[in-house]
Amino acid sequence: MLEAFFRPSSIAVIGASRDPEKLGYAVLFNLKAGGFTGLLYPVNPKAGEILGFPAFASVLDIPDPVDLAVIVIPYPFVPAVLKECGQKGVPAAVVISAGFREAGREGLAREQELLQIAGQYNIRLIGPNCLGVIDTQTPLNATFAAGMPPGGPIAFMSQSGALGTAVLDMALAGRIGFSRFVSLGNKADVNEIDLLEAWEDDPASRVILIYVEGLPDGQRFMEVAQRVTRKKPVVAVKSGVTRAGSRAVSSHTGSLAGSEAAYRAAFRQAGVVRAESMQHLFDYARLFAYQPLAAGERIAIVTNAGGPGILATDALEHAGLQMARFDPPTIEALMEDLPGAASAANPVDVLGDALADRYEHALELVLSDPGVDGVIVIVTPQAMTQIEETAHIVGRAAASSNKPILGCFMGEARIEAGVDVLRQYGVPNYPFPERAAAALAAMVAYRKERERQLYQPHRFEVQGKAVQKTLDRVRSEGRVSIGDAEAREILAAYGFPVPDSRLAETPEAAIDAAERMGYPVALKIASPDILHKTDIGGVKLNLDSPGDVRDAFDLMVYRASRYVPDARIWGCLVQKMVPAGREILIGMNRDPQFGPLVAFGLGGIYVETLKDVVFRIAPFSRAEAEEMIREIRAYPLLEGVRGEPPADHAAMVDALCRVSQLVTDFAEIVELDINPLMVFEQGRGAMALDMRLVLQ
Amino acid sequence: MLEAFFRPSSIAVIGASRDPEKLGYAVLFNLKAGGFTGLLYPVNPKAGEILGFPAFASVLDIPDPVDLAVIVIPYPFVPAVLKECGQKGVPAAVVISAGFREAGREGLAREQELLQIAGQYNIRLIGPNCLGVIDTQTPLNATFAAGMPPGGPIAFMSQSGALGTAVLDMALAGRIGFSRFVSLGNKADVNEIDLLEAWEDDPASRVILIYVEGLPDGQRFMEVAQRVTRKKPVVAVKSGVTRAGSRAVSSHTGSLAGSEAAYRAAFRQAGVVRAESMQHLFDYARLFAYQPLAAGERIAIVTNAGGPGILATDALEHAGLQMARFDPPTIEALMEDLPGAASAANPVDVLGDALADRYEHALELVLSDPGVDGVIVIVTPQAMTQIEETAHIVGRAAASSNKPILGCFMGEARIEAGVDVLRQYGVPNYPFPERAAAALAAMVAYRKERERQLYQPHRFEVQGKAVQKTLDRVRSEGRVSIGDAEAREILAAYGFPVPDSRLAETPEAAIDAAERMGYPVALKIASPDILHKTDIGGVKLNLDSPGDVRDAFDLMVYRASRYVPDARIWGCLVQKMVPAGREILIGMNRDPQFGPLVAFGLGGIYVETLKDVVFRIAPFSRAEAEEMIREIRAYPLLEGVRGEPPADHAAMVDALCRVSQLVTDFAEIVELDINPLMVFEQGRGAMALDMRLVLQ
Repeated sequence: MLEAFFRPSSIAVIGASRDPEKLGYAVLFNLKAGGFTGLLYPVNPKAGEILGFPAFASVLDIPDPVDLAVIVIPYPFVPAVLKECGQKGVPAAVVISAGFREAGREGLAREQELLQIAGQYNIRLIGPNCLGVIDTQTPLNATFAAGMPPGGPIAFMSQSGALGTAVLDMALAGRIGFSRFVSLGNKADVNEIDLLEAWEDDPASRVILIYVEGLPDGQRFMEVAQRVTRKKPVVAVKSGVTRAGSRAVSSHTGSLAGSEAAYRAAFRQAGVVRAESMQHLFDYARLFAYQPLAAGERIAIVTNAGGPGILATDALEHAGLQMARFDPPTIEALMEDLPGAASAANPVDVLGDALADRYEHALELVLSDPGVDGVIVIVTPQAMTQIEETAHIVGRAAASSNKPILGCFMGEARIEAGVDVLRQYGVPNYPFPERAAAALAAMVAYRKERERQLYQPHRFEVQGKAVQKTLDRVRSEGRVSIGDAEAREILAAYGFPVPDSRLAETPEAAIDAAERMGYPVALKIASPDILHKTDIGGVKLNLDSPGDVRDAFDLMVYRASRYVPDARIWGCLVQKMVPAGREILIGMNRDPQFGPLVAFGLGGIYVETLKDVVFRIAPFSRAEAEEMIREIRAYPLLEGVRGEPPADHAAMVDALCRVSQLVTDFAEIVELDINPLMVFEQGRGAMALDMRLVLQ
Repeated sequence: MLEAFFRPSSIAVIGASRDPEKLGYAVLFNLKAGGFTGLLYPVNPKAGEILGFPAFASVLDIPDPVDLAVIVIPYPFVPAVLKECGQKGVPAAVVISAGFREAGREGLAREQELLQIAGQYNIRLIGPNCLGVIDTQTPLNATFAAGMPPGGPIAFMSQSGALGTAVLDMALAGRIGFSRFVSLGNKADVNEIDLLEAWEDDPASRVILIYVEGLPDGQRFMEVAQRVTRKKPVVAVKSGVTRAGSRAVSSHTGSLAGSEAAYRAAFRQAGVVRAESMQHLFDYARLFAYQPLAAGERIAIVTNAGGPGILATDALEHAGLQMARFDPPTIEALMEDLPGAASAANPVDVLGDALADRYEHALELVLSDPGVDGVIVIVTPQAMTQIEETAHIVGRAAASSNKPILGCFMGEARIEAGVDVLRQYGVPNYPFPERAAAALAAMVAYRKERERQLYQPHRFEVQGKAVQKTLDRVRSEGRVSIGDAEAREILAAYGFPVPDSRLAETPEAAIDAAERMGYPVALKIASPDILHKTDIGGVKLNLDSPGDVRDAFDLMVYRASRYVPDARIWGCLVQKMVPAGREILIGMNRDPQFGPLVAFGLGGIYVETLKDVVFRIAPFSRAEAEEMIREIRAYPLLEGVRGEPPADHAAMVDALCRVSQLVTDFAEIVELDINPLMVFEQGRGAMALDMRLVLQ
């Protein structure tokens, strides 16, 4: 899939130029200098020969088949040229030229024209407005960037071409190596999802990095990413996460930035490792690319300096990892090997005068301890420190171990030679312990996600048709918001326990209903035009007698007609009072990129004031619903504090999954709030007391 | 102060050696190679001449005065040699030798001997067990580290010598320059506080960096730091912050690590900038050292790439800074200067084909906008980018502006030359926008702290003698914990409003008390041996009648004697029921390093479950008490949600300040809890319902 972009046999560079100042020259030069061994055809009506290759006036003039076209001509001519590529039967085109969607409305129309041509001729398109494509294995450098990066196991895709130039410049300095590199530009056709699929089984790419501003199809991305992350780690930086950042995104590429909460949930559910910054992205990538996955989170530190050992210990705990506890035989052997003043406990302090051999013994012992899942080796350049020898020791240990080893050679002038040695062995070095710890934490989190079962959303038996009928009726009346009486039908149809309840059109009917269900009852004004009933005093609780019911009925109808004069008033809903419990909010907003974003939190001030709420994209499984419940900060309140019994866990999971199913089944529901879901103690279930929802 | 360490005219190196493998050689070599222009005296009974300097058998044999002794001999001989230094009248000694406190009990005794000798002869001592001292101005390199770091405006002190070697190695690569560098070692005499005072007015040191594991005298550190941070920024990394980290500290240097909460509060109150990692420490230092302080938090970004502009925007918001909004004339001028596709709003996108001159215009306009307090200049190495020319533009702009400018030249191979140019102009470069944003945020926070008024703790009129009497009585009875009845006396003596209350020894007395104060009342068991009354059912609320009071009295006395058979039972406390309000917890624990650490939070689950609590070191001012209240996450609940009136703010501030005074006045109080302080609505005050405290 998309192999024509990465392993073409022949390439036409349309817009190739003899002028070294032009991008059309740079692309052809890079292809040649990058060592491409296939056929290269410059296309330029004016030039006879460029860089030693005979030029053609049009792609149609090339006698042989062309696998890939790289287009570097001014935007007005791109559509016509793409059409010629189609006529020629070229299956893939990289459009480097700018002047499309990013340039306003006319540009957008031009981009749509490209897409239409590509569709017509079955051409896959990368760009427009991009830096190009690199494959270091082929080798192929179809970009106008300066130089070919070194090869390596990292595949990188970037929505930003400029960021790509910076990343390639880092690579040129020798710090990282790439298998494939794609600047996606405007993503008219090929996008992140396509590349994930294309790289899923590429043996040269051990880890996939993504810089993304906005995704085209969130649900599809999740589906593909969930599959790919089972095979190899995918690490992403998502920019435009804050409000100000989002504004910058829309002025930049016009792509719609999903909300931060939705991205967080989606990456998590898809097993994508989220890097909080570009530095983290590459810190994580180097570990994933070169070291085996850690089997667990118990980390050992070997150091020749106390202070950095403490910093590393702090950083590991801060990152949520465990300091390994050594087996007694390990400690004994360490004590035997090390000088008296050294520390045989974790962190292992081999002391400032340690030569390489002392590191070797300590590392061997620590690595063979079954309670150790990974090791950080700290080296400070002290007077006697054998920096390069120690780096060789660390490298050899890493080569013969199935546990990840990270270097933390601290310093720069003297240390650099050691870092170079480590690189030869594929041991990533981090100049400060905090960065090593963060990378290990990302690895441990990835491993956990990957190993857990793939979740299947639970399907309940529900009455979908009844819900459809209600929704259709509401829409036929031109309404989009649904409150109590109708919402109750929907909840009941999807199997939510709801309190006994009846719509009463008169005070007498209300009293009759109350007598049948038994006091106390609650009364709520029933009107399709009043969504926030409490705001107008439209709810009365704990009514104990016929007189109370009559008074409440009259008062609420009077108030409703006064505050909302045009409201259609159906009467009042009489509802059996339910016992006290813990009040939960379950909500849903339809995110423009990922679809139904379901929220869970304790009701009232916890959600409103403390913002203590977690999100997942629906549909989700029981296990994911479980996670949601445990992730809120106020979770201990659900477990029960001060001798309270725990709240009914299963009932909350059930409610979350039923909401997941409801909002998945009915895409026309764009907002939903069950508030409160009253959750009783363990074994006693829960009840949805109030719901409102909004249709498209 | 301590000038003998940094600007000596003559130095004796005791233990100087001719063997290049020995530290005693390295120190003399460094002094000579580092360019020290004063007199150098190797002291070594066996060597006639070392590195061209005639050696002396003893410091006593040196004919001239000696300002500084550097001691590098095996530990058994150090005390005798130090004594000789005393006899010679040497005012300052750096003891590099190890084998003291860090080596166990015998070592500790040896260290105390050193200290005793130093005291006797008035010698100031750095070390033992340290790397040494550097002053690049003098110049003086009295360390055994490899090479002399370049000069610069950064003063650095480190408790860890090994970390020092790594830092010096970074400096040797040219990234940072130091004015002074001290490895403090075991801090037998000279410690962080002494160096802060010594560097307070050193014009060569524009910023002071500290790596600290534990501080000797927290309150004194705060006092000195508060003064120094008014003059220059102090940036600190504190290691051993997590539980596992703290264990590593105590096994490493034996210094007692203060609790994380206490350090956080102390640094904040003293205006010390806290760096979360070594990388942040140097990122912040480079900005403080070379750029002017930002006057505010409105930051502009100038970039030649959209993606990194978004990353920077995200990072600025994440760091709590504001994106500057330009004046209309600035935007107009930018639009005039820049090509049509560029963005004239913040971030200013000069586009990928920008040459240096386009940066120049944009930077000039942005810097002169009054709504801009600082600028981040992002440069990605695109095809046409003039990296060095642009760096010169940025450098010149910085040189002529009083606003801080930060470089974010991204990449490595091509970018490096530009970064070197920036360095010449004193413009710090950050490879990723997130790091630039974090440094700016630290600068803005420092500026705010520095500009605010120096707080004076408020002193209330109180009855200190009454409290002393109560405390003395409790101690004379051999008790250390104080509960309700006595605690009430203490609270009242310090001006806390307490509910009307009387101790009743019999049910009849309790009824009498209740009748006088009026129903409803609460009864609480009164016993010096029962601190947690609710646990044994020793509290009854809302008693409405004589019968209820009698029943409650009898029941509680019965229960108390059953659950705590040996308890002395004084009867019951009858207390007027107070109206409902918001329940606050004010607590205090005496931190071993900083003293009284006062806690503030909403009572109950907020503190217990959500850990929503803030700390300050007492004594503190009204303004700091105000800050505490606003810092808890649940603060909106105090402001009033859903139409509730706000809680009485002044009453909470008052209570915090009275606690601050109480625990400052009585050092023997080691723990205190007012729980709850019932706070009524605005203007109605607060009442301390219950307090317990623990004496030393």
